[in-house]
Amino acid sequence: MTNDDSFPSRLAAAVRARRTPVLVGLDPRLESLPAALRNGAGSEAAAYGEFCRGVIDVVAPLVPAVKPQAAFFEQLGPAGMQALHQVIAYARSRGLLVILDGKRNDIGSTAQGYAEGYLGPPGASAWGCDALTVSPYLGDDSLTPFVETAQARGAGLFVLVKTSNPGGGRFQDLVAEGRPLYRHVAEYVESLAAGTRGQQEYGLVGAVVGATYPAQLAELRQAMPHTWFLIPGYGAQGGTAQDCAAAFDARGTGAIINSSRAIIFAHARPPYKERFGESRWQAAVEAATRDMIDELRAATPAGRL
Amino acid sequence: MTNDDSFPSRLAAAVRARRTPVLVGLDPRLESLPAALRNGAGSEAAAYGEFCRGVIDVVAPLVPAVKPQAAFFEQLGPAGMQALHQVIAYARSRGLLVILDGKRNDIGSTAQGYAEGYLGPPGASAWGCDALTVSPYLGDDSLTPFVETAQARGAGLFVLVKTSNPGGGRFQDLVAEGRPLYRHVAEYVESLAAGTRGQQEYGLVGAVVGATYPAQLAELRQAMPHTWFLIPGYGAQGGTAQDCAAAFDARGTGAIINSSRAIIFAHARPPYKERFGESRWQAAVEAATRDMIDELRAATPAGRL
Repeated sequence: MTNDDSFPSRLAAAVRARRTPVLVGLDPRLESLPAALRNGAGSEAAAYGEFCRGVIDVVAPLVPAVKPQAAFFEQLGPAGMQALHQVIAYARSRGLLVILDGKRNDIGSTAQGYAEGYLGPPGASAWGCDALTVSPYLGDDSLTPFVETAQARGAGLFVLVKTSNPGGGRFQDLVAEGRPLYRHVAEYVESLAAGTRGQQEYGLVGAVVGATYPAQLAELRQAMPHTWFLIPGYGAQGGTAQDCAAAFDARGTGAIINSSRAIIFAHARPPYKERFGESRWQAAVEAATRDMIDELRAATPAGRL
Repeated sequence: MTNDDSFPSRLAAAVRARRTPVLVGLDPRLESLPAALRNGAGSEAAAYGEFCRGVIDVVAPLVPAVKPQAAFFEQLGPAGMQALHQVIAYARSRGLLVILDGKRNDIGSTAQGYAEGYLGPPGASAWGCDALTVSPYLGDDSLTPFVETAQARGAGLFVLVKTSNPGGGRFQDLVAEGRPLYRHVAEYVESLAAGTRGQQEYGLVGAVVGATYPAQLAELRQAMPHTWFLIPGYGAQGGTAQDCAAAFDARGTGAIINSSRAIIFAHARPPYKERFGESRWQAAVEAATRDMIDELRAATPAGRL
């Protein structure tokens, strides 16, 4: 594998090609789908598939990557997993990078099973994902199999460091040896990123850091110079473009900013609800995506892309 | 729901009925299957299904519960998930409790998706599990949806507290406010267990605590009087019956002890390999299960069951 085939290189190239770090989260929920899809697709899983393909058709020319949320597909049982598999393949076929949000992990030999199943292109892996989100609680030997498999297959990881939810601090903010737990995790993730970057600026191990904690975001950007950030919490959870500004490097790379509900269900939210309504839900998705791109261009180093 | 329908009550009744706390882990791996299954089932997923049903047929009269490991089924893609669904349903049909080892979690609204999908009987949930393993890194509001859904559906949870792997200590053993992180998680889990126990001794929120750390197991049993323990690490990972003794209450309940590879692949390990060989792999599973039951009876309070 050359450096150009590595996940961090492919991610940087995709962000530069689309001139935006916007990551669209695919979080289908039956009650939020446009009624025509909710009632017309034959099954919930079919509705999720049709809806996600409709979102992908709109955003593929605009953004570098999508992030399917495994939970909502898993909620539907095996049929949902089949729909997830098709959504991943469809996103790839439209030229999007696919970061599966599964927050998986286990002890080493079992982590290997997750890594081999999810990471790498179809043929190399059953699911065909470019990257996967991973939880750090199980420690270093639980992360090693993911790192090694990702490296062998040109894939990437995003490890939970500082999550966007209000209760995330209960354990992540506990102070040990003079700094919070999330800083300990950050140090370990940065060491993995630095160890996998080769001649590139960023390694294949990234970090999930919430937009809802902008001070910590700035602090972690300083502490993790070789780590791509995946930033949830934008939009529906309250994070703003200004809150994300510190996540980027000077060239506007180093961070991707996720929005899920505020984009994919824009048809149900002002101002798009009034402008488009449910029948033109794809136009609402496009407008919300373009507005987020513009907001980040105006208020962050992503304007230099 | 009456207390008798609750997961902790059902688990205690099943442990008493079988007079053992042995939990059989269903961790299929293609390279370890008996050759006849590995080569004859048509697909890897079909081989996993056939193998697990074969294990279940043997252990259903002997043990209270099985623990399918999601990773190995997920590794095969949607076909593996279909096999997992069938294995869960088959185990239920044979009277076993099913604890899915998925180590799932996410922020609150997404955790709700996992909880609704996995917890509760078929009809109430897509997967039909009695309990699910859950990771705590995302904090309290990530656990709440699991607890509420489990309570509504008579299901249970096992939260990672002190895991069995050598690297688990990197974060779990960090000392904050005078005690390690795993003790902070333990305190929160115990509060959830105490809050859901009603008039019973144990609540519906359990803890995963590795047999490979017997001192911590004894310490946590004292600190968590209302919490069922799920103990991995027995057998193949090095934990012994003596190591598990402190996990039980005086009546021999309060803990279930998992063994995966040492039981399901007994045909490939001494002394069962010599006695049975690959062709009689189910007899090897039965002998290994009975031996583990006897070991725990001889060396732990499970002898009082």
